[in-house]
Amino acid sequence: MKLFETGELGFLDSIKRFAKNNALVKFGFGDDAAILHDKSGKNHLAITTDLLVEDTHFSFKFCTPRELGVKAYEVNASDLAAMGAIPYAAFLSIGVRGDMDMQDMIAFYKGFESAARRHDCVIAGGDTVRAERLIVSVMLIGLRPQNAPPMLRSSASPGEHVYITGAPGESGMGLHLLINGQNNSSDKRLQPLIKKHLLPKARIREGIALADARAVGAAIDISDGVYNELRHISRMSKVRLVIETAKLPVSAGLKRECRRLGIDPLEMLLFGGEDYELLFTSPHPLSLIKKIFQDAGSKTHVQKIGGVEKGRGVIFVDADGKRTSFADKTFRHFVFNGE
Amino acid sequence: MKLFETGELGFLDSIKRFAKNNALVKFGFGDDAAILHDKSGKNHLAITTDLLVEDTHFSFKFCTPRELGVKAYEVNASDLAAMGAIPYAAFLSIGVRGDMDMQDMIAFYKGFESAARRHDCVIAGGDTVRAERLIVSVMLIGLRPQNAPPMLRSSASPGEHVYITGAPGESGMGLHLLINGQNNSSDKRLQPLIKKHLLPKARIREGIALADARAVGAAIDISDGVYNELRHISRMSKVRLVIETAKLPVSAGLKRECRRLGIDPLEMLLFGGEDYELLFTSPHPLSLIKKIFQDAGSKTHVQKIGGVEKGRGVIFVDADGKRTSFADKTFRHFVFNGE
Repeated sequence: MKLFETGELGFLDSIKRFAKNNALVKFGFGDDAAILHDKSGKNHLAITTDLLVEDTHFSFKFCTPRELGVKAYEVNASDLAAMGAIPYAAFLSIGVRGDMDMQDMIAFYKGFESAARRHDCVIAGGDTVRAERLIVSVMLIGLRPQNAPPMLRSSASPGEHVYITGAPGESGMGLHLLINGQNNSSDKRLQPLIKKHLLPKARIREGIALADARAVGAAIDISDGVYNELRHISRMSKVRLVIETAKLPVSAGLKRECRRLGIDPLEMLLFGGEDYELLFTSPHPLSLIKKIFQDAGSKTHVQKIGGVEKGRGVIFVDADGKRTSFADKTFRHFVFNGE
Repeated sequence: MKLFETGELGFLDSIKRFAKNNALVKFGFGDDAAILHDKSGKNHLAITTDLLVEDTHFSFKFCTPRELGVKAYEVNASDLAAMGAIPYAAFLSIGVRGDMDMQDMIAFYKGFESAARRHDCVIAGGDTVRAERLIVSVMLIGLRPQNAPPMLRSSASPGEHVYITGAPGESGMGLHLLINGQNNSSDKRLQPLIKKHLLPKARIREGIALADARAVGAAIDISDGVYNELRHISRMSKVRLVIETAKLPVSAGLKRECRRLGIDPLEMLLFGGEDYELLFTSPHPLSLIKKIFQDAGSKTHVQKIGGVEKGRGVIFVDADGKRTSFADKTFRHFVFNGE
């Protein structure tokens, strides 16, 4: 059978049996990052990797080389944030086209390195090869607080609350504006949304604060859209997530542009993707979560959007307690069958 | 300036300033692997990464998917061997073509996993994306003996001896035979040479034994040819390497095929590449190096091929003590300028 017939999930199902744990590798395939223990069992490393291919994951029609460098770092750092880890070593491999400009490649490295410097994370190695399209393969290694719970997708429990950081949907709107040629628009109000897409910031500070406080059940970063990540947690934790649509944090900027363009802001929030915010469950009330963030020096908005129950699936209820549903419009990065 | 004008070295020179050390990352760009310390400074991790692109680094004209899987593991494991580390966690990211066969991809993973199992190394994560040519990005994490010297390219000292393991040149001959359509040859004597190219075995046992015995100055694995790796050690250690050509280990199989094909066996040995043998310097005599290998249960051949002196460069001397030279025929994986 050809891969375009099996699709992503069929493919992943076939290869996941090759992923295993050993004495030092505690969690593998399926989560944002793997966790390694050292021999003493004391230090926890979290490791994540992403492969980005030109014209599949990025295009220089929409971003500069410097922006690509920043984003290549941040999307990986975001996976570590969801595991409560702080990046300290980066491995950056690239396949480069011969017709690329040297200054552009230097700008790419500068972008990556400047973003990494925020966490005192250094580029510790990599590989450079020739390719017909730019390939960026990033691996980040991060440190987790000693003995912090693992914050897996599978560790949500009934009775916990569901929280989300920041303003999801803005990145998706930013991409929508870029695709529609608004990058150089004179409308200054569009730029913050576009910047959210091009220059995301991983929630490292918040992830570590949550890990330090042992405050989290399950956690995930929102790369593929809120809807999709909710389903991941539900499926892997074998719980039901009940989401109150009225509590989903639609930002003023997202609301304004959605009104102008005739888009449902909740749909953009649920399916937009690439928000790199944290979605997590916790037994603690919102007031304590806010205090944990404040004590860590974070000004990031955090909102309670629902609860964890026994059962399965993700259920949306409106302000009147009535169930609502959304057609799944999640963008698939990895489509073999021409969807 | 375009990358095809600057070439690989110009490019690497421009980006290497972005590679830095921090409190936990001890060595970065330029060596086979980076070394990370944990907070206690006790455990040493060695990390290496390789990016392989279809038709640049491999072709299914010459290898099966399973063989590619084995080799993708072994070439990275070989980088760890040169640092005296044993792999324990692998991250395997791939970009796949939609027209690839699922069974082929499973065979690829099986090959990788079976090779990794020798070291109790597990696939701990990765990323799968769509690409127009197969892309394989591997990262291996290994453990080094506590407080073992780093075994860098830059740590050779005058007075040391130069050693090499195995039968370098056989892999280059194997590739030569493959390119010339000898894969299905009825001549059984060709298969061991072809297998050396398709299914290399990293010298993990030997690397760890050398690290355990604190027996090594500089070490490197021979991926780009003996000549090139000698120059790396000479340049980075700022020493002169004096190589006795009569002592270079030309295997019987290599000698036989070179005679048949009219190729200088020393040239194949020096420039063939992809041998994944260890080239290292040591203050210890050959008898002690052999004992270290034997005690570790290794039957790998090791030979003393020369010495380290004050000065610069690599000098070849023949059996009469007369200097000889070789035109550099090293194959460049990464050629921008059409060489």
